[in-house]
Amino acid sequence: MAADAGRPAPAGVATGPGTVRIAVDLLGGDDAPAVVVDGALRAMRADPDLHLLLVGPAETAAEVTDALDPAQRARVAVRPVRDAVAMTESPTRAARAHSTVRAAVAAVRAGTADALVSAGSTGATVTAAVLGLGRWPGVRHPALVATLPAVEGPVVLLDVGGALEAHPATLSRHAVLGAAYAAVAHGITAPRVGLLSVGTEAGKGDRARRAADPLLAVGPLPCDARYVGLVEGYDVTLGARADVVVTDGFTGNVLLKAIEGAYAMAGGAPAGGGAPRAAALLGISGTVVVCHGAARADDIASGIALAAHLWRRGATDTVSALLAGDGPGDRTDRTTDTEVTAS
Amino acid sequence: MAADAGRPAPAGVATGPGTVRIAVDLLGGDDAPAVVVDGALRAMRADPDLHLLLVGPAETAAEVTDALDPAQRARVAVRPVRDAVAMTESPTRAARAHSTVRAAVAAVRAGTADALVSAGSTGATVTAAVLGLGRWPGVRHPALVATLPAVEGPVVLLDVGGALEAHPATLSRHAVLGAAYAAVAHGITAPRVGLLSVGTEAGKGDRARRAADPLLAVGPLPCDARYVGLVEGYDVTLGARADVVVTDGFTGNVLLKAIEGAYAMAGGAPAGGGAPRAAALLGISGTVVVCHGAARADDIASGIALAAHLWRRGATDTVSALLAGDGPGDRTDRTTDTEVTAS
Repeated sequence: MAADAGRPAPAGVATGPGTVRIAVDLLGGDDAPAVVVDGALRAMRADPDLHLLLVGPAETAAEVTDALDPAQRARVAVRPVRDAVAMTESPTRAARAHSTVRAAVAAVRAGTADALVSAGSTGATVTAAVLGLGRWPGVRHPALVATLPAVEGPVVLLDVGGALEAHPATLSRHAVLGAAYAAVAHGITAPRVGLLSVGTEAGKGDRARRAADPLLAVGPLPCDARYVGLVEGYDVTLGARADVVVTDGFTGNVLLKAIEGAYAMAGGAPAGGGAPRAAALLGISGTVVVCHGAARADDIASGIALAAHLWRRGATDTVSALLAGDGPGDRTDRTTDTEVTAS
Repeated sequence: MAADAGRPAPAGVATGPGTVRIAVDLLGGDDAPAVVVDGALRAMRADPDLHLLLVGPAETAAEVTDALDPAQRARVAVRPVRDAVAMTESPTRAARAHSTVRAAVAAVRAGTADALVSAGSTGATVTAAVLGLGRWPGVRHPALVATLPAVEGPVVLLDVGGALEAHPATLSRHAVLGAAYAAVAHGITAPRVGLLSVGTEAGKGDRARRAADPLLAVGPLPCDARYVGLVEGYDVTLGARADVVVTDGFTGNVLLKAIEGAYAMAGGAPAGGGAPRAAALLGISGTVVVCHGAARADDIASGIALAAHLWRRGATDTVSALLAGDGPGDRTDRTTDTEVTAS
């Protein structure tokens, strides 16, 4: 609870009621640092109560401060770190090294930032966050949560890359996380939760889905959420049947990228917005947002805005509290989280 | 080889050089028989060398013949069968009952039809085809193969629902099937084959993908195909990196439906066409096309046209011959095919 337990801000840190301090990994992402610098500036222009802790080389951070009006420079602090995480590095090694993402996690842990945003290697960010901030009780596999526009409102999709193996206990646990997130982060009343499969009739799906379906049917859900059973691929994009769609991180990740490609093929995203390029990491004691590795400046700005929104809503604390005491969690799943422990 | 081994047509069956006889399951699909009747008529109008064997209630078949010009009625034969397969039935029971799909398979086996098309339960069709026509040597898990439009040409995606579990040996075998299919059915020269994962760097993915990647890297591919490594969701829709994208049937199925939903959200399919609603079943000794359960009349017509195209190209025979003698196949994978043996 390192980050959100600190709200309101610790004594001595000047923050107003809406003020939020986001640590930004300047070296994360395929096109870092240029797009991160640009995205940070856009985010600051859009949100006057936003403060940034820039984590990366001092000369890169200077590109941000130099571009700001002198009166605005007090909104920026710098944590000088030189090392980035290469996409080819093992997540564990990357998270243990003296990297920008590790320094950003440390800032959240220390309470000098309220949340962090990185477009670097998802595996390294998840691992650094797990090691540096800790998991919620009852959550073995943190989930990356993305929100897609759909016909009648947003659809919350999880997991989109936090835990890649499909385990029934994890799917069941993520249903609880997703329901709470939909209610807290998006204000969805009594969210409908569906399990992604190849058909809607009971019994459709692979072994993991056929085992998870009855678990979800009996598991209590927070926020008056109800389980609506199996849903299909359309329900992720069109959203008719469920407000929350639960799947494993492998499927969710390839799905999100295929949808992004489909919108590009169709000549552009629908009016309500395209596939999101920033996702919240849920199940960690702190507010963490992961941006797409190929993030552009506006994706970085969206990720920073999402982190600010989640912190202002107290989403991490509230979702965590909704989970507390509602069952054994997914610790019955003793398997190893691929991304977190790969070495 | 019941179906294609019969080409040219057995003595006594009147077929011209381009003539093809497709068995159509009148009762398969959510909106059967109305859309199947309509689709059959559209297919006949579009292809003057197309003959149909209508498998279903005589009065439904009469709706097709009654709508035809009397001179065209000789192009239609009827196999009266009353029972459909319900979507909720177990595939094995459905395939063993005296159902329309089983009768259509029997017609292909007997050589009275060259290929079959059904929009009924995928599991029942796959099971009926496996039991009635047999698998190719070296193919334990038949694959459903869909072709998507992309920027520089079609992308062959498999599996989209034939075998739902992700096994490295099956993924490796399906890479061979997909490469041969891309070359034979679509005329793609030296196809590039990719394995769908969450990133392109080696080591990205769940356990099944990390085990399959080195298998694909060393396994020989037919038709001068080459393995290009891991690809991502975008590569299914945009097609920049691979002509053939290999994944498990669970992921492929939800992906295809999410893409279909994305095009609907974006206001329509791209100029090159949307997500396909008909897929070829590969690995079966016969030409079998499975249409989407929610098929509309034009989807049924497309499925019939695909079956005719595949039979005229001798695709099933040619792909099967390309596979013969190229290794042990996926029989090293001793697990059970979910759809085929569920009871």
